[in-house]
Amino acid sequence: MSPQAERLSRVGQHAVSLTGVDGSPRVITSASNARVRWLASLRKRSVRDAQGLTVVEGYAELSLALDAGGVAPRVLAYSPELVRDDVQATLLGRAEAAGAELLRLGPAAFARASYRESPDGWLGVVPSPERPLADVALSSNPLVLVADRVEKPGNLGAMARTAEAVGADAVVAADAVGDWGNPNAVRASKGTVFAVPVAAARSAEVLSWLRAHSVAVLVATPEGDSLVTETDLSGPTAVVVGAEHEGVGDGWRGSADHLVRLPMHGTVNSLNVATTAAVLLYEALRQRS
Amino acid sequence: MSPQAERLSRVGQHAVSLTGVDGSPRVITSASNARVRWLASLRKRSVRDAQGLTVVEGYAELSLALDAGGVAPRVLAYSPELVRDDVQATLLGRAEAAGAELLRLGPAAFARASYRESPDGWLGVVPSPERPLADVALSSNPLVLVADRVEKPGNLGAMARTAEAVGADAVVAADAVGDWGNPNAVRASKGTVFAVPVAAARSAEVLSWLRAHSVAVLVATPEGDSLVTETDLSGPTAVVVGAEHEGVGDGWRGSADHLVRLPMHGTVNSLNVATTAAVLLYEALRQRS
Repeated sequence: MSPQAERLSRVGQHAVSLTGVDGSPRVITSASNARVRWLASLRKRSVRDAQGLTVVEGYAELSLALDAGGVAPRVLAYSPELVRDDVQATLLGRAEAAGAELLRLGPAAFARASYRESPDGWLGVVPSPERPLADVALSSNPLVLVADRVEKPGNLGAMARTAEAVGADAVVAADAVGDWGNPNAVRASKGTVFAVPVAAARSAEVLSWLRAHSVAVLVATPEGDSLVTETDLSGPTAVVVGAEHEGVGDGWRGSADHLVRLPMHGTVNSLNVATTAAVLLYEALRQRS
Repeated sequence: MSPQAERLSRVGQHAVSLTGVDGSPRVITSASNARVRWLASLRKRSVRDAQGLTVVEGYAELSLALDAGGVAPRVLAYSPELVRDDVQATLLGRAEAAGAELLRLGPAAFARASYRESPDGWLGVVPSPERPLADVALSSNPLVLVADRVEKPGNLGAMARTAEAVGADAVVAADAVGDWGNPNAVRASKGTVFAVPVAAARSAEVLSWLRAHSVAVLVATPEGDSLVTETDLSGPTAVVVGAEHEGVGDGWRGSADHLVRLPMHGTVNSLNVATTAAVLLYEALRQRS
């Protein structure tokens, strides 16, 4: 047996031993199978929202979601023919232990369910990470990131990754265009959307919630009155960053306790929104340590 | 005449008045025209490298490149049928004043040359922003960003954007996988690759060059000995960040004056490479101001 065939066989055997109480492997080969069509339907936000679910694709991404957030997958779909490394079969045991249903798919069926150009044979269905504001528990000295009307799921995910790294209390998408369950947000976050609380709400609600918790509102804008390094971020603080093109909206600017700017020494007067968020969060962390 | 037809006609007339000394517009309609094939060939790095050219596509991107870097386009290709806003016709005059040859293309020919799914009718050919190390002039107190084996052009571009914002002396791609002329790098940079000096060289050359200019080498790694906020970045400093998966290579680590880390309070112990670079550059700027 070739090493490649042996690897695949081992993954396959592992799968066989884990699927079905009757010991017979159920392999879905048809791309038009109802379960496969259900997996594919989760590409649509309306379907994700209605079912409260999202998709995490890829071995590395699923491992990170399990490691970072203790996520309990509802379903783990896999295709041994696409898996390139037999060590990855350990994911089957982890997912099953967390309560996941295992779905073994043939390559064509997996390709139909997959969101990627080159799928690696792993796709999990997990509860959406997005929670209502009321379910976000704040610490005694909160640091919150608010993303106002950010459009690109990749930027939302990148902000979650940084917010998780600095130990922020939450990332709140205000008047969000994208959703936290968007597969591109999940991917860009490296699984951290399951580790740091992520929420979404209307801007007015977010503002009321911050006020109710006595959290200062600090809006980042190129027109800020003071430099962020000269502003006190050591107390309860919400850092508000804005949409990719328009920046933070007028409602937030009018309600802000501080309008702050980053120093800009170049000819282009804006940074990427996720970059701005990272610099602000790390400045807050510096002031707090 | 409908408003749409009137807009297109105005762009078209503007073009006619600028193309050809004989007053007759030359419109390339065939997608297999030699000039069109040449434009499309610049997608290949080998062609870009051989000709020392790159492509900037899109009205906003071209405007930023002209504004930020004073770029002199060699060729400006445009298709009035695709242009959605007649104000954009001013770009023709700007490009021609900078010495560009204007190429009017029909929609099919433009689509063949375009790099985008939804082209907006503007595509410029410009000199590659990449320069040799020897052509980088350092200030009296240099701040340099070194990107070690970074793979994604989008990350290179994002780093140029931040480096330009903080007024860094240069961004150097060491043992680069991507090139600075990659259209995705140009786009992610928002045109700043033409405003901040960008170079590429082997790591050993970069290190010699830094040593020759008495620039301290500061390597960012999760295994760093000291926190970046506790490290002196106020003197001549090169900040070295590493490849997306492996981080900074052993050669750089062994040669570093400092191994520094960012504080990490989450369960995932790495940030995006461009995010890491941004936090370090802004910390350097804070210490220098």
